Amino acid sequence: MNEFKLYSYFRSSASYRVRVALLLKEIRFQYIAIHLVKDGGEQHSDRYKVINPMGEVPVLEHSGKHISQSMAILQYLDDIEPRPLLFPKDVFLKAKVLEACEIVNSGIHPLQNLKVMQKLEREFKINRDDGEKWAAYWIMRGFQAFERTIATHAGKFCFGNELTAADIFLCPQVYNARRFKIDMGMFPILEKVEKNCLELDAFRNAYPGVQPDTPNE
Amino acid sequence: MNEFKLYSYFRSSASYRVRVALLLKEIRFQYIAIHLVKDGGEQHSDRYKVINPMGEVPVLEHSGKHISQSMAILQYLDDIEPRPLLFPKDVFLKAKVLEACEIVNSGIHPLQNLKVMQKLEREFKINRDDGEKWAAYWIMRGFQAFERTIATHAGKFCFGNELTAADIFLCPQVYNARRFKIDMGMFPILEKVEKNCLELDAFRNAYPGVQPDTPNE
Repeated sequence: MNEFKLYSYFRSSASYRVRVALLLKEIRFQYIAIHLVKDGGEQHSDRYKVINPMGEVPVLEHSGKHISQSMAILQYLDDIEPRPLLFPKDVFLKAKVLEACEIVNSGIHPLQNLKVMQKLEREFKINRDDGEKWAAYWIMRGFQAFERTIATHAGKFCFGNELTAADIFLCPQVYNARRFKIDMGMFPILEKVEKNCLELDAFRNAYPGVQPDTPNE
Repeated sequence: MNEFKLYSYFRSSASYRVRVALLLKEIRFQYIAIHLVKDGGEQHSDRYKVINPMGEVPVLEHSGKHISQSMAILQYLDDIEPRPLLFPKDVFLKAKVLEACEIVNSGIHPLQNLKVMQKLEREFKINRDDGEKWAAYWIMRGFQAFERTIATHAGKFCFGNELTAADIFLCPQVYNARRFKIDMGMFPILEKVEKNCLELDAFRNAYPGVQPDTPNE
């Protein structure tokens, strides 16, 4: 009964976070693709909303129970499989890691994800260009703060030379930033950390470009 | 040196969360008001951005060190003063509490806070009415999910009869919902939980209407 399933979409950056965590902890899981765009979005079906009432990915299923929200899933995974630990034991350091995670999780990502961009277009007739400027504004604002937050801590990764959850929140957001044509050269610390992360198998194998539901072209 | 300061704004719902947590844990703190509107917003000053590069409240200062992001602060407070514990020890229950918190923290609040509403008005010339509809849309969408998420768990509070962080994230969002004229009768579980929370001194004393920086009229 100790089975893991991940409801995921290749391009979803919150799903990307959880894929990295599962791979780092070497937890085997079944990948269940939820297509966020096809037929208006599979995440909106009544059947899926029983699993996650927010109608979003990712959802982790563990032994038949469901957890959504990547922050909740990552902390749960740390609780059941502490190796490697994503949130440090030192309480102040853990708080700073959480702070960095939340810059992305609540400070950037909610303002530039698919459903918000769709709503801006549909409701306010915002054209693609202005939509991209909106997204870029929130990403750059958040990245400036993220870079300052980790400046005195960063080593190979956001907080020293040990990987933490902050790196797992950062990299998918950098992937998004590039989609919105942001020059990562403005954020040298973030760029360096991402480069170091992408050398790890867990990040490579969690990458949007190589998922079971990634389109061929 | 074991001193606590809270950088707060009376109406900020993220500050309201931290005020509740500090009061529940009976941690004495100095209240430092940061006016988010006056003179374009005190949170944008260079001096304040040293404390929080995101230019937001709340920030907790503990023995000269700073932590921002209410999720990080609440978990830090649980680590240094576990009574009462806001995130349960049971790992699955803790994950569900975190999931509920994040419905508000990343799913609702970022889309309807002051700076986003200001940006919509300024950038896209969205009028007040349409802005309020936008905010109400995200609040109702999130509250529907929140209500379904806690439906099988709720007792006096979101998760049984013990207060958790989920209640602390919920109540300030209900306060905001009322400002956006949402009929809380649509969410009977949330309405009941909020009523029970507001009977507690910690919630009463953290309420936006009674802070040192609350205007007289």
